[in-house]
Amino acid sequence: MYNFNYHIPTKILFGQGKINELPAEIKAVASRILLVYGGGSIKRNGIYDALMPLLQEAGIEVVELSGVEPNPRVTTVIRGADLCREHKLEAVLAVGGGSTIDCSKVIAASALSEGAPWDLVTGKTPITTALPVFTILTAAATGSEMNNTAVISNMETNDKLGVKHDAMLPRASVLDPTYTYTTGHHQTAAGTADIISHTLENYFSKADDFTLLDGMAEAILRTCIQYGPTALKEPENYEARANLMWASSLAINGSVRWGKADAWSVHSMEHQLSAYYDITHGDGLAILTPAWMEHILSDATLDRFVRYGVNVWGIDPMLDKREIAERSILMTRDFFVRTLGIPGTLREVGIGEEHLQIMAEKASTPALQTSAYVPLFPEDVLAIYKRCL
Amino acid sequence: MYNFNYHIPTKILFGQGKINELPAEIKAVASRILLVYGGGSIKRNGIYDALMPLLQEAGIEVVELSGVEPNPRVTTVIRGADLCREHKLEAVLAVGGGSTIDCSKVIAASALSEGAPWDLVTGKTPITTALPVFTILTAAATGSEMNNTAVISNMETNDKLGVKHDAMLPRASVLDPTYTYTTGHHQTAAGTADIISHTLENYFSKADDFTLLDGMAEAILRTCIQYGPTALKEPENYEARANLMWASSLAINGSVRWGKADAWSVHSMEHQLSAYYDITHGDGLAILTPAWMEHILSDATLDRFVRYGVNVWGIDPMLDKREIAERSILMTRDFFVRTLGIPGTLREVGIGEEHLQIMAEKASTPALQTSAYVPLFPEDVLAIYKRCL
Repeated sequence: MYNFNYHIPTKILFGQGKINELPAEIKAVASRILLVYGGGSIKRNGIYDALMPLLQEAGIEVVELSGVEPNPRVTTVIRGADLCREHKLEAVLAVGGGSTIDCSKVIAASALSEGAPWDLVTGKTPITTALPVFTILTAAATGSEMNNTAVISNMETNDKLGVKHDAMLPRASVLDPTYTYTTGHHQTAAGTADIISHTLENYFSKADDFTLLDGMAEAILRTCIQYGPTALKEPENYEARANLMWASSLAINGSVRWGKADAWSVHSMEHQLSAYYDITHGDGLAILTPAWMEHILSDATLDRFVRYGVNVWGIDPMLDKREIAERSILMTRDFFVRTLGIPGTLREVGIGEEHLQIMAEKASTPALQTSAYVPLFPEDVLAIYKRCL
Repeated sequence: MYNFNYHIPTKILFGQGKINELPAEIKAVASRILLVYGGGSIKRNGIYDALMPLLQEAGIEVVELSGVEPNPRVTTVIRGADLCREHKLEAVLAVGGGSTIDCSKVIAASALSEGAPWDLVTGKTPITTALPVFTILTAAATGSEMNNTAVISNMETNDKLGVKHDAMLPRASVLDPTYTYTTGHHQTAAGTADIISHTLENYFSKADDFTLLDGMAEAILRTCIQYGPTALKEPENYEARANLMWASSLAINGSVRWGKADAWSVHSMEHQLSAYYDITHGDGLAILTPAWMEHILSDATLDRFVRYGVNVWGIDPMLDKREIAERSILMTRDFFVRTLGIPGTLREVGIGEEHLQIMAEKASTPALQTSAYVPLFPEDVLAIYKRCL
């Protein structure tokens, strides 16, 4: 296992009604904030109406930025950063899912930077500081509420890039499972696929000597397998929503990554799909994951698939190893397609062969070629994409 | 499940050689520190010789306090706090296991308080602030390196009490698994029992609707069961020491507790043993745990024991439930006594019947009577103690 630093100072306020504790956390550092949200669902589900009086009582002035896209765009970041500078705002409060939070993080960094927001995303201008970020989570999926990462799209250049900096770590995040009761069927399914994918990206790792982390990853995976379907059938099941919500944070706050260091394979391939076609991230991950597994299954990776099949899917350990591995992949695909109802092919989400070559070349970054669990070159990625058609 | 707040700002520097990064963390807040350690093993195992030049290079002046007891005493806290005030020290660096770290935490709080140290422990004088605490961990056991808690003994009054405050949370902790290579056989065994006990205290909980946490707890327990014996046989096995070390932190930093709220049963009973007899904490926990399990096994708790037996000990789930439960307790005792070589009875650690009654009365706190997983009254505790003779 590799050396690592752990540091997650984000304060999590978990549970029903916890929004009441947020204004005091904000007020400790800011009296004027940018409130960021997406398409307006927070006005339909009551969160907006609950939040605004609380902020007012705490003496916090609010400027609003709405309309953050599902794959948040740098143009929206620019609008938000301009608002922060114009109104001399002191913090950013994201209310929404991962897109809104990601967008808010880069707004917070851009507001204090001379550089253009896209240059902060590409790394051309380094991030050094950011306004404090707070979040109210409304969808269990990306884990952005408890990490230092944001993913921003530039539709002019068909780029979707991740950027990280500890200054963008949320100061405090409200995780109220009841806020996900109104998350729709498709978003709940795609979010569950996202949590699973984050966990698998670390679970399939060259560093396989950190059994404790593998066991924690398996717990997150089994949680998704158990509660994803429950949340679909009973959207207001608190137990299911709460387990999924906390799983979303733990899957990607470092808990199951520390001590490993591999480049993430499926995310790199998926980012090309949503950059070119603007599809739902979780859909792309669910389509690609089983195909990626089929592509990398070999004698060298067999034991890891066996562990996965037995500990996550409960496959009989007495079966032949190859059979366990293949069955684990079948069960993974079956779960995404039949149980969660996510499209199983690229064609179903409107993706044909036209950009596969260029997307494969962009996905196969130097990191993917050198430090992925199984190195992936453009021809590997292309083969995986074609399996998914 | 209950609402909870998560907040662990401690920075963990994990892995071989990570001590090199500590001086910069200290220097950011302090140039004059109290170095606290125990019986001098850090001089024999090379940590002291590695540390001192690093501190000197960073321009950090050091005053030393050595001789912290295995159950740290308030008299030592007083000496440390006096040194801090006398030399105007700005931080406390603990190098050792849980005892040294606990002692350092209360020194750090006492140095900035008008109240007597024992009054801070009993809560008579509230803790409001503390000098920054840093730690270099040399034993995987108590998890004190990543939480806000300390346990201090007063041998005059036969009291061993816990005290918590976020001001005592370590700012940064070095977890270098090689530093535990020289942890002796008995301390390695007792430390493993301690980690298991912390995990079980949360695992057996009235709130059984947080499956994700239960899965994580099971991962920690299986890690101890797998790597405890490995570390005993091969003290310099990095993989075993690293897994145990990180398990020690996760078992009691809140990761498997959030969302639950039960009072801890076995710890309350054990604290009386070490307060009256100064025995090793992990020994006491290992002796008491199986007896406590036997005492509380009933139709009401059966399902939890079945889950424990199947998921932690790998017992065949097709067996009769009662048999699974009883077998899980047998396997727990067997692991402590035969596999780890910890004494199995109170008499073996020099404890007879003389103080059982008074200890039972002190252990059965109001919290234990109202909010333990299964409420324990003095007669319950006495029965459990007697089972252990």
